[in-house]
Formats: sequence, C-alpha cells, structure tokens
Amino acid sequence: MTAPRPNPLLSDRDVDFQLYEVLDAAALCALPAFSEHSRDTFTLLLDSTRRFAREVLYPTYRAMDAEPPEFKHGRVHVHPLMRKLYPQMVDLGLLTATRPPEVGGQQLPLTLHAVSSAYLMAANLSAYAYVGLTLGAAHLLEVFGTPEVRELFMAPLYRGEWTGTMALTEPQAGSSLADVRTRATPAPDGTWRIQGSKIFISGADQDFTQNVVHLTLARTEGAETGVKGISLFAVPARRPEGGKLVDNDVRVAGVIHKIGWKGIPSLALNYGEEGDCHGWMVGPPGRGLACMFQMMNEARIMVGLNGVATAMVAYHEAVAYARERPQGRPAGIRDATKPQSPIIEHADVRRMLLRQKAIVEGGLSLLLTASFQADVALHGTDEDTRKRAQLLVDLLTPVAKTFPAERGFEANALAVQVHGGYGYSSEYLPEAWLRDQKLNSIHEGTSGIQGLDLLGRKAMAGGGAALQSFGEEVAATVARARKSGVEPAWCDAMEKALGEGAEVVGALGAHGMSGEVELMLRHSADFLDLFSVLAVAWRWLAQAAAAKEGLARGGGDADFYEGKLAAAQYWFATEVPRIPLLASLCRTGEDSYARMRPEWF
Amino acid sequence: MTAPRPNPLLSDRDVDFQLYEVLDAAALCALPAFSEHSRDTFTLLLDSTRRFAREVLYPTYRAMDAEPPEFKHGRVHVHPLMRKLYPQMVDLGLLTATRPPEVGGQQLPLTLHAVSSAYLMAANLSAYAYVGLTLGAAHLLEVFGTPEVRELFMAPLYRGEWTGTMALTEPQAGSSLADVRTRATPAPDGTWRIQGSKIFISGADQDFTQNVVHLTLARTEGAETGVKGISLFAVPARRPEGGKLVDNDVRVAGVIHKIGWKGIPSLALNYGEEGDCHGWMVGPPGRGLACMFQMMNEARIMVGLNGVATAMVAYHEAVAYARERPQGRPAGIRDATKPQSPIIEHADVRRMLLRQKAIVEGGLSLLLTASFQADVALHGTDEDTRKRAQLLVDLLTPVAKTFPAERGFEANALAVQVHGGYGYSSEYLPEAWLRDQKLNSIHEGTSGIQGLDLLGRKAMAGGGAALQSFGEEVAATVARARKSGVEPAWCDAMEKALGEGAEVVGALGAHGMSGEVELMLRHSADFLDLFSVLAVAWRWLAQAAAAKEGLARGGGDADFYEGKLAAAQYWFATEVPRIPLLASLCRTGEDSYARMRPEWF
Repeated sequence: MTAPRPNPLLSDRDVDFQLYEVLDAAALCALPAFSEHSRDTFTLLLDSTRRFAREVLYPTYRAMDAEPPEFKHGRVHVHPLMRKLYPQMVDLGLLTATRPPEVGGQQLPLTLHAVSSAYLMAANLSAYAYVGLTLGAAHLLEVFGTPEVRELFMAPLYRGEWTGTMALTEPQAGSSLADVRTRATPAPDGTWRIQGSKIFISGADQDFTQNVVHLTLARTEGAETGVKGISLFAVPARRPEGGKLVDNDVRVAGVIHKIGWKGIPSLALNYGEEGDCHGWMVGPPGRGLACMFQMMNEARIMVGLNGVATAMVAYHEAVAYARERPQGRPAGIRDATKPQSPIIEHADVRRMLLRQKAIVEGGLSLLLTASFQADVALHGTDEDTRKRAQLLVDLLTPVAKTFPAERGFEANALAVQVHGGYGYSSEYLPEAWLRDQKLNSIHEGTSGIQGLDLLGRKAMAGGGAALQSFGEEVAATVARARKSGVEPAWCDAMEKALGEGAEVVGALGAHGMSGEVELMLRHSADFLDLFSVLAVAWRWLAQAAAAKEGLARGGGDADFYEGKLAAAQYWFATEVPRIPLLASLCRTGEDSYARMRPEWF
Repeated sequence: MTAPRPNPLLSDRDVDFQLYEVLDAAALCALPAFSEHSRDTFTLLLDSTRRFAREVLYPTYRAMDAEPPEFKHGRVHVHPLMRKLYPQMVDLGLLTATRPPEVGGQQLPLTLHAVSSAYLMAANLSAYAYVGLTLGAAHLLEVFGTPEVRELFMAPLYRGEWTGTMALTEPQAGSSLADVRTRATPAPDGTWRIQGSKIFISGADQDFTQNVVHLTLARTEGAETGVKGISLFAVPARRPEGGKLVDNDVRVAGVIHKIGWKGIPSLALNYGEEGDCHGWMVGPPGRGLACMFQMMNEARIMVGLNGVATAMVAYHEAVAYARERPQGRPAGIRDATKPQSPIIEHADVRRMLLRQKAIVEGGLSLLLTASFQADVALHGTDEDTRKRAQLLVDLLTPVAKTFPAERGFEANALAVQVHGGYGYSSEYLPEAWLRDQKLNSIHEGTSGIQGLDLLGRKAMAGGGAALQSFGEEVAATVARARKSGVEPAWCDAMEKALGEGAEVVGALGAHGMSGEVELMLRHSADFLDLFSVLAVAWRWLAQAAAAKEGLARGGGDADFYEGKLAAAQYWFATEVPRIPLLASLCRTGEDSYARMRPEWF
C-alpha cells in the first residue's frame, strides 16, 4: 500500500485566523485557570500535534481502513499499528490536556484542544477515537467518582494504561434510553452485580492495553421505570482484585461490521452471563443519565469536530486534485489543439470546491466558537458570565453536532465527485472519508434527536435567555462587520435572518405552551436546518469581518482573505435565502408527513 | 450469507398507476409499431420479469456485492453466479425486447422496457448492467453497422452469446472526448488497426461468454483534431478469423476497485500493444461521437432508471424497517411503562420516508414520461409529432439522468439513517445501495456535464421549441389537475414555476446571444436543480390528478391515493418554493465561485 500524498489536514493559516483573528483565543489566558498559558504555549502544543498528525498518524489511515479489527476466540484484535500509536498519543499529553494539574493535566483551554483534536481526527479518526472515548470516561470519573473509584479507574485511564468506553445503547432500546434494561444488584461488598446487553459500543475490546473500563448505564433493582431509574456504573473488563486483574464477566457477543471508522471496533457486549460482573456506581443513584450527559455533551462536540475534520481532509484532497488534473477547457474554448486546463478552471468545479470550503470552514468556526464559550462557561470570572456562556454552549451543541455531520456528508460527496471516476474507487481516499462521515448523523444522538433537543429544550431554555444571548453575540458580530466594511447587504441579511429565527421560536413556543407538543416539534428537522444556516452565516460574517480587517492591515495575505470573502458571499447568496422557506414550514405546521399514515406508504 | 428479506423492488400497484392512470401506456398499442401488443401482453412481460427479479436476481445481490471480480493471469473472473444469470436474462428476451422482429425482437415500447428494467436494476444492478451494455452496443451496430458488421458482431450480441461495452474514456482525457487519442490505421483488408488505452470500461472482460465487443472511439490517421476527427469502431476481444475466434490484442491493463456496482468489473484496456488489434468501422468516418451519442443517450436514461431503482429498493427496505422496529414513543408520551412504538410513528421518521417517496416515485414518473415520449419520437404517426416528442426527450434526458442520481443519493442516505446504527453496518443492505448510487452522478457524463448540456443545448434547442412543447405538456397536466379537483394552490404554483423557468432561460439565452458564454453557463448546476424540481413537480401534479380521479372512482385504493397526495403536497411545500431562489442565482449571475481564483482556496 503506497503512502498517501501529503495533505495538510487543516490549514495552519486558517487555524491561526480562526483562533486569533476571528476569535481572540489569546484572551483566554487572562482567565486565572489559563494563566500559565500564552499564545506561545498554544503554538508549541499545536505544532507538536500537527507534526504527529501529518507525519505519523495520517500515513496509518489507509492501512487501518483496509484491515478492520478481527474477532477471534472471544477477543478483538485491532490493527497492530495501534500498539505504537496509542502510547505516542498518550505521550503527546492528549488524555489530560484540558484537565487540571491535580490529575496530571495541563489545563489547556477546550478551544485549543478542539483544534488540535481536529488535526488528529482528520489524520485518522479511528485511532484518535480511543483517546477521545478514554478521556471522556476518565473525565466522568473525575467529576462524579468517589476517591476509591477515581483511584481504581480514573488514574489508569488518564495514565494511558487502560482505555474507556461509553455503554448506553441496548439492542431493544436504541436511542430510547428510558427503555434501558441492564440491571444492577447490590452486593455485600458495596459494589454491584451487573447483568444485561449493550450494543454499538465503540472500542469495547482491543489488544493494545490490558484493560477497558465501560461507563455503563443500568437500572438498579426496584428502581422506577423511565430515565429516573437509571444509574451509572464503572464496569471494567478485568477488575482489580488481590493486587491483580481478574476477568470481570463482560463478554464480547459480536462485532458490528461498520462501513467506516474501521480502525475501532463497534461491539455487542454481554454483562454477567455467569453472574460475576462487578460494577462500581458513579454519581448518585437514579442520576445516571444526568451524569452521562456530561460525557455525552462533550461527545457531541467531538462528533461535530469529527464531521468537520473528515470533510476538511477531503476538501484539501479535492482542491489539490482539481489544481493538477487537466481535463477539457473552460466554457467557450473549443480548440482541441490547445492544452487541457486543470479542472479547477471549470466554474462548476470551483462551485463544488467553494461549497465544500463554506461548509468545512464555517463548521470549524462554529465548533471553535462553541468551544470558546465552553471555556468561558467553566472558567469565566463571574457566575453570570459563566451561566450565559453555558446557555450558549447548550444552544449551539445540537447545531455543532449536526451541521458538520449532515453538510459534511454533502461536502464529502462533493470531494468524491470532484475526483470523477477515480473518486468512485478505493484507490483514492475520498470514498473512505465519505463512509466515515455517515456515522456522524447517527451516533451520540441521531440528527432527528438533535432537532428535538434544539427546538424542544435548548431554544426554549431559560425562558428565552439562551436565544437572547445568541442574538447579542450575533449583534456584536454585525457591528464588527459593519465597522470593518463588510458588504452591508450581508449584515442586513444576518439581522433579518436572526429576526426570522426568533419569530419561529416564539410561534412554536406558543404551541408548546398550549400543549400542542406534536405541532411544536413537527418541523424540528427544518428548524435545525434553519438554525444551522443561521449559526454558520454568523460565523461567516465574523470571518468576513476578520478578513476585511486583515486586508485593511495589508501584508501578503490578500489571497487568503479574498477566499474567505468569496466563501462568505457564497453562503449569504445560496443558503441564507432558504431561511424564510424553512421558517414558513415551521410556522405554518405544514402537515404532509404529520398526516401521512403508515399504511399510505 | 443469509437470504435478504423479501423486498418488492418496485411496488406493482405504483407501476400500474404510473403506466395506466398517470400515463396512458395502453394507448401506445394504437401506434402501428406496437399493434401486436396490448395491456395483456405488457402484463405478461412484466409478470415474468418481476418474478425473476424478486425470486432469482435479488437473492444474488449481496453475494455479488461481497465478492467482486478478480483479475488473475490477465483475465477477469466475475462472480460464478453470472454463468447462470446471464443466460436466464437472455431467455427472458431482455436483449431484444424493444427491437423489431427482423433482429429477433418483440418491438415492445421503451416505456414498458424501462419499467421492467427498473425491477431488474433494483434487484441486482450489476448483473443487469451486462444486459444493458450489450443491448446498447448491439443497437448501435444495428443502426450504423454494415451488413457484414451486423452479421459478425450484432447477431451474437443479440443472441446473448457475447457481451458488449462502450469504450469512450481515456486516462488523459476523462470527460473531454475531444482529447481522445486512441488511433485507427487503415489495413489492406478494409479493417483498421487500433492502438491506444481506455479506462473505466464496464464489463470489458468476464468469463461467462466467449467474447466481448468494445464499441470504441478512436481517431483515424490524419483526421482533424477535436471531436470531428473521431470515428467509431467495433473492436472484439477475440476476432472471428478462419471460422474461429482468435486473440485480437486487447489487454486488460488493470482493474478499478469500485466502491459499488461490484458485480461488474471496471477495467483499463490497452489496444494493439502487439500491433495486431483489428477494428471494424461503424458509421461514417468522423461521425463516431454522433453515432455513439445514440448509445449514450440511451445509457443516460438507463442511468436515471438505475438511480430510481437503487433508491426505490432502499425506500421499500426503510419503510418495512420503520414499520416493525419499536423504539421510543411519539412526542408528548413519556410513560416508559407503555410499550415502545414502531419508529414510523415518529414524525421525523415519516418525514424521511415521505422525502424518499417523493424522490423515488417522482423520479420513476419522470423516467416513464421520458420513455413514453421516446416511443412517440420513434413511432409516432406523423413527423411533427415525432419531432416534437424527440425535442422533449432531448430536453428531459439530462434531468432524467441527474435527478435520480443526485436526489437518489440523498434518498439512499435517508434509508441508511432510518436504519440507525444498523444502517451503518454491512449486515444490512442500505449502505450497499448508497455506495451503488454514488456512481450515477459520475458515469455517462457527470452532473456538471448534464447541467451544461441542459442549459447550453437542450433548453435553447429549436429556438425555444423544446421548452415550448414542455410548457404545453405542463399546461395540459395543470388543466387535468384542476379538473380532477387537485389543490388549486399547487396548480397555481406549477404555472408560476414554469413561468420562472422560462424567464431564466430567456435571460440566459440573451447572454449566450451576446457571446457571454461563461455568464450564461455559470449557474448551470443551479439551473439543472431548478429544472429538476420543476419537472418532478409536473410529475407529482400528474400523479395528484390521477390520485384524485382514483379517489373519485371509489374502490378500495384510498390508502394508496392518499399517500400519493401527501407526497405531492410535500413536494409543492418543500421543493417548489426553492425555484425563485435558484432562478435568482441564475439570473443575477451571482459570482462567488466565478471570481474565486485557484490560489484563494
């Protein structure tokens, strides 16, 4: 298998732009939590991660896609490359980067962690997924675990000795966590005996560390039905006993043959077939789902980043291909004795590339903004600031999760299309990224569930406070854009779109108040689409403003800034005008699929 | 490998509806060419094809997807199932169904052939592809071949003894056929010696018949550059010589590892490496591309049918899954002691299914309408009728090719999404159909090329005569819809949309007249999208009219007709309102990607 050609994964110039020209990531260092950091430490960290992502991780992607894990004699054997890669990622400090020194971390802002993760995801999303899952599990134990549980399980996870998983889904329940049936029975030693089945558990077995800890949702004996009867447990594959690790009666029941993310297995697990599966409760009884949602919300941002990264690496590949592949001549030139032009000279190829750019760079900006607000929510200097930022994070999470998944899939399909017939072959990488991307609209809550979350909870949260804060952020960006000389029509369109979005929420909220829940939520998919277009327009307006400021400063970066302005123009010309249509579907409660009966299909 | 669960492939009820309630396919039997036929003979044919598709062909799909052809010792070995399947398809009369009795055919209308092919494509598109390519090649020889060439090559193709291919694409030229370099040199025996390379040739080698005939584009010695120097040749893999078949110096140079259509190989070919590759010219010198376009236009309709069929089989699978998979409860019900509901009860799942229905049944209607016009174009009773119908076929071809490819891909992705985590695994079939579908936007002219064809040629054809005829057809449908009591708002919207489309063509045509070719064609992708939405709206209005008529007649089919009306409503509510946006992009010449420079990306 030949090495892939070099791919920047993310553009360093764009990352600098997003962090320091669009956002002011250096300002985070003024917060006490980040006082040890500076733009210089950020750059050091990013440089080591980028180098690793490009030189070590990316060249392993194709091999891990081609040779997925094997299930033999009850154990899963993953690609042997992981034996080297995992310790290298641990050595880069990725597991504890954002955690405080007490647990061995560097207390890096999430904003920086997000962008450094994105390089790794773009390079080899499956290899990085073991890290992402492990740090999510360890963080959950750090926050909710007793000192004993932290010592037993969190410490080896953070040290990179074991890996972690999140074990929520069950075969009969799927997305409906209220229907979780796995049972936990108290044992005399203070732990619990776990019995049940889980499915689609990523990384639930591997052969490069000696243990795996499953953060598992289960129902305690006699607990009430629904979500309030669910608690959270740490359930190791091998439990510490008498100074060594012994089998903990968690069996791999089967392997799901995923079509992408082939470097990490997705497994079905059986717990306690022999009645000897020990679990340690994490957090208060009956609060399992609430605790898990800490990990889940982090995971949703991670999914969004994955979506951006997976579409981004494909975008860079498509641009490089379009620049070098000669074929045909621009419209109006018919003389076949003239040399052929690179396909980037064709307007429609540039359309496909600009659409990808608008999606991936708009998506990255959205994810970094959400991460920036998450940093403020955790470490802002006063409570009002933290609360406001948390509302924004909550509001943006379903959008930041879904937009890159749905539109990223479209962008990935365009990258295949730009490659023509070659794009349809597994000799080229775009088809692999297209397969990888499809999972992002399904795992950690499907797009449908994100729509319900956005419209049913987040947009209505705090009696409208979340939306109001969002409106303030948008207004500040409009002011900056007007000042920097951004096309006034875009600023006007942004204000109008914001108003339309708010009006829809008002109208649908009224349905909710009068108990018409079905009517309120009927067009949640359209509302999610609307709000995604709006949020990404906001991020493109911010980028346009920063680009105008950059152009005014002068220097040699005009090409970069002009590209940003063209992508912003594209978004305002092609996507923002869809908002009134989507708003109208939501407001009128258009009823084609609402009244559609199963027997009519 | 277990058998898949039964899937209707196409709904027989829908096929009857499209043929006899929306269209009047029986009326074709009034044309002299089809006088031997009746609705009864149509039904006999459809019944045998359907039974074969469901009972024989569909159960082979998964195995052929899982075990693609192998390239060993210079020859390609396809799945052994093809040794049985190909003769069975030949025995069904598929190769000659539409051909006249002189060549052993049944002279069946293309409309009927289209729908019967769609069952086969939905069952196993690769297995059917050998048939489709062979009948295209044989038809080309039938029309343009000398008696000698017809005897030598056409006859064994129609008899099912050999298979055929279309060999256009070359590695350095891709879609740019003007840059074809394969050379043909005259030989004393009246044949030609061929030398060159082709790539992406489907079915160019196999081991279930004794020979393959490549309909090959090549440039005769001394011919002018560009497309006018290209001629068409029949180039067999083994040539008849002295009463037997001898090697004709066509070598398989490599196999493309396609991500779908895995039952049929896509190959690179080298012709005449040893200077001994004989070709027989087909049609006049320098007219190769013109001749080939007969096959190409048929192939484009076939690609559209493939797109419909591939999205249709996935749609049926998704509906069946959604009806039986219990998960969660409808919005507003939170009591977890209640049994879970089938996911079809969730509004957003019904949205995904209704969107698929709107795409696949709208697409089928479009393809059958184009085929109906093709029957009239070939066999209409007077020349004006034939000419008018041909203009309509030409106008509809790029839309009928691209809409099912692009929107079908979206529908296929929705079928995966409805299946949730299971949809992301190769244990379920939707992911395979998603892979299959992606080729349809690439082969036989990419979507970008179809856009240029539609806007640059077809919409402007006959000084506006094509568009005028299209407008008359739409007007007749609107009249029928108004009479049958279809929602007047849809009829009004249809008329308005038609006007908007015509206005765009007028404005862009004016750019073309004044030599601004780039400006005219800049938004050809948006125009193709616009015209697709418009054409499919026309087909949904026709279906709504037929459904209203059906409801008025009474009988037990109310569920079926209500489903049709809901899908029509969905299309008019969600897609038709996009037309003004697309029209505005075309008319204003929005210039974001036009002015984007390669170095700005």
